[in-house]
Amino acid sequence: MATMLQRCSRASKALIGTGKLTPKLYKMYVQATRTLSSLPASPSPSFPDEYPHAEMRTTYPGPRSIALGKELAQVQHTGAVQFFVDYAASRGNYIVDVDGNRYLDIFCQIASLPIGYNHPAIVAAMSNPSNLAMLSQRPCLGNLPPADWLPMLQGTLGSIAPRGCSEMVTLMCGSCANENAFKAAFIWYQTNARGGRPPSDADFASSMHNTAPGSPALSILSFQGGFHGRLLGCLSATHSKALHKVDIPAFDWPVAPFPRLQYPLADYEAENASEEARCLAHVADLLARHNTHRTETSQVAGIVVEPIQAEGGDFHASPSFFRALQQLAANHGAAFIVDEVQTGGGSTGRFWAHEHWALPSAPDLVTFSKKLQTGGYFAKPAFRPAEGYRIFNTWMGDPVKMLQLDAFLTTMREDNLLENTEITGDYLRAGLMELAARFPGVLGNVRGVGTYIAVDFATPASRDAMIVRLRQLGLQCGGCGDRALRFRPALIFQPRHAAECLNILEHACTETR
Amino acid sequence: MATMLQRCSRASKALIGTGKLTPKLYKMYVQATRTLSSLPASPSPSFPDEYPHAEMRTTYPGPRSIALGKELAQVQHTGAVQFFVDYAASRGNYIVDVDGNRYLDIFCQIASLPIGYNHPAIVAAMSNPSNLAMLSQRPCLGNLPPADWLPMLQGTLGSIAPRGCSEMVTLMCGSCANENAFKAAFIWYQTNARGGRPPSDADFASSMHNTAPGSPALSILSFQGGFHGRLLGCLSATHSKALHKVDIPAFDWPVAPFPRLQYPLADYEAENASEEARCLAHVADLLARHNTHRTETSQVAGIVVEPIQAEGGDFHASPSFFRALQQLAANHGAAFIVDEVQTGGGSTGRFWAHEHWALPSAPDLVTFSKKLQTGGYFAKPAFRPAEGYRIFNTWMGDPVKMLQLDAFLTTMREDNLLENTEITGDYLRAGLMELAARFPGVLGNVRGVGTYIAVDFATPASRDAMIVRLRQLGLQCGGCGDRALRFRPALIFQPRHAAECLNILEHACTETR
Repeated sequence: MATMLQRCSRASKALIGTGKLTPKLYKMYVQATRTLSSLPASPSPSFPDEYPHAEMRTTYPGPRSIALGKELAQVQHTGAVQFFVDYAASRGNYIVDVDGNRYLDIFCQIASLPIGYNHPAIVAAMSNPSNLAMLSQRPCLGNLPPADWLPMLQGTLGSIAPRGCSEMVTLMCGSCANENAFKAAFIWYQTNARGGRPPSDADFASSMHNTAPGSPALSILSFQGGFHGRLLGCLSATHSKALHKVDIPAFDWPVAPFPRLQYPLADYEAENASEEARCLAHVADLLARHNTHRTETSQVAGIVVEPIQAEGGDFHASPSFFRALQQLAANHGAAFIVDEVQTGGGSTGRFWAHEHWALPSAPDLVTFSKKLQTGGYFAKPAFRPAEGYRIFNTWMGDPVKMLQLDAFLTTMREDNLLENTEITGDYLRAGLMELAARFPGVLGNVRGVGTYIAVDFATPASRDAMIVRLRQLGLQCGGCGDRALRFRPALIFQPRHAAECLNILEHACTETR
Repeated sequence: MATMLQRCSRASKALIGTGKLTPKLYKMYVQATRTLSSLPASPSPSFPDEYPHAEMRTTYPGPRSIALGKELAQVQHTGAVQFFVDYAASRGNYIVDVDGNRYLDIFCQIASLPIGYNHPAIVAAMSNPSNLAMLSQRPCLGNLPPADWLPMLQGTLGSIAPRGCSEMVTLMCGSCANENAFKAAFIWYQTNARGGRPPSDADFASSMHNTAPGSPALSILSFQGGFHGRLLGCLSATHSKALHKVDIPAFDWPVAPFPRLQYPLADYEAENASEEARCLAHVADLLARHNTHRTETSQVAGIVVEPIQAEGGDFHASPSFFRALQQLAANHGAAFIVDEVQTGGGSTGRFWAHEHWALPSAPDLVTFSKKLQTGGYFAKPAFRPAEGYRIFNTWMGDPVKMLQLDAFLTTMREDNLLENTEITGDYLRAGLMELAARFPGVLGNVRGVGTYIAVDFATPASRDAMIVRLRQLGLQCGGCGDRALRFRPALIFQPRHAAECLNILEHACTETR
């Protein structure tokens, strides 16, 4: 078996390098290699000096991590700390902790690490003397952009801009991206309502007291289970975990159900179609009440949705669901805002997850952060306010992150990493299906696209215990929702890494018997 | 005159280097050098290779900046762009644009540049190979801190922590810092209201629908003219410019007047005392209605205030005003939140502006960003939520910014930059007073502490025209409020730079006659 996997991995690697291995061809390999009983010998990795495999020297968490955590607790909450990291020693798909434990990382800094640890392209960008001026002071990009700001934007964001979204706004993080996209939607909605005229004196005056008409009762429609960040605006659109929301005042914005599909999809076609129709009907009803009949307090200026509800538990919907959603938004004068903070950056096998939907036209606004290193959003031209300073911040992003984004995108193209992700994802998903078949009470609901995959465990407690156990076995991973394990590896995650991951998971599942 | 100023500058510089020049001693120099009629010959600057003075090759804005702006307008709003910058050529107090114009910079990237352009200490930190791992990947600091995270915190934020504020939270920017401080105040307030118990099941359940009791009607009391950022929560506490607020939904949070003092202070003691009493009475009334009698919708969980209202127009209040405010907050169970995003970092001559107030105990929360490069807040231990993930974000700051903060703080101590700022500020203020006396219809209301200074012009239009004219004469500057010019130089701004600035201003004022 090891030999099969090894051969498969080598063949894949050789072909990936030439760009000749199609997903279909690779599936044939996968068919033959479902049974994972031992780690394949590692082919020489394409990542220079990458470690051959995970290796644990202590248990998880290691004694030094525990000691450092106790010390840190003097000045910060450490309830979310997993372990302390030796970032200089981490490399490629492997993260090394302060106890010398080396984990295969399928969580990658909450899905924010694009091409692994200490990737040579990023190291080169950060040590290139010609970038030193950009590293040594942080410009106010909105006031005083560097000379090459436009080429820097065009060479990075311009190369991945959704068709029709010519507007590019850089910001600080995902929450900041979403809040500013909301603001752009509000300004656009009110400008439309005024027939394109600027705000009136009464608008300006009342806004200074947080009252209407200047501070209008507008809302963003969001979905149960969605996550759009933790600032006060986007937290009102977040409904993934109550602990994130409780005790914080919220805008009374409408919330619709998001489909809860049953797996395997092929077995539940009718049920899933009906579930999506139910959710769409709910959205349509909310929009009618808020925007058409105006029987509710607020008007919906935008609908915000994740392509895959990530923090909420990796819930998917079909392309036709999203196409219908876009149409509903357009019919009711609301912006269609796609939050690609976690899904963007290639891990679904396309750079943007919404590329899987075959939309007739681009979303109105697409927000991003995480793997792109810079937060921000793309927008259609209509979402540019007429006046300056309305979407503004001291820094408006950070050119250092643009240098990293440039290194990421260049590497992604040169190394065919989207194709690698599709191939590795097919292989990983096939392996997980096999584990689900072998461990039916333990693990199930295998779902995902590219390497953006999740599985469910039986209960929240068994999922939580599984995460600890997987770390003890050398797999750095993270959950989402109540009982899901999510896979968020970097784009350099290859079939050999997926095989290692599957072996660790198989080992842990076997123990639960 | 030039000789006097030159001697003064040299003496100052020599003595600053030894730490022996007291503000009092320097004032004696300043007395003798009020009349500014020509630029002093520049002493050799302590900043290596700093330019001797501003020098304009084209008018402002230069033709290349105009051309680049037109191109950038294809993809971004450029309404706030001043000019395009050659950051590699900028040095110390001088910013160089793409047309080769070299400006003396008293605005310093909206007050966010701590020790000038390309400071050797920051350049050294950014090119130190041992920092390369921190530059090459961005950790999730809340989940996976680097091994030296605690010493990194202690060596930087720990060294400037307000006494009693042992809690240090790093975040992304000033708005993010304020919103998270608000969240910490809300959680603290509700926890107090529950007698320390965790949220109930009903709290958790209702919060998922944005409704009470889980999403409580809590508010942050803020001040007319205040600025706390542009995200949806902090924008509800911002009341500086209507254009920043209009069309965006807001929380209906209470707003109190902030003192509008008259200058010179010595001539208006009674009026100013009465003005502060009026504002405090308004705050007391709001707190009574919201928190004691509960006749309003919301309870006030916190009061947020800037030590000097910056964006609003550089409005000051006396130390006793802030002490009374702190007491009012405490009396009504509200957190006292001091927003030091712009005032923090040394430009008032103390590291924190609130150090000028002689508070009996530290503020409950102190927020920061800008000059510190990282956003974040300090807090008293009671403001740490019991549970993890309640104050959280993927990145929770950025270690690269901590490296820059470390270089800044080390330089500040080694070069006695707080003392330099106090001395330069005294000199600059004295020079501005003299200009105000000579140009009474043009410029007035000289106010400030350290180099954190402002003057008013006669009208908004004359202020706006003055900013353009000053840039044409080689002074990069910015306004605030309706008709103020604000001084926000870096901490390396020395008397010779202040003299150059005063000469340019004098030139421009003379032209207006």
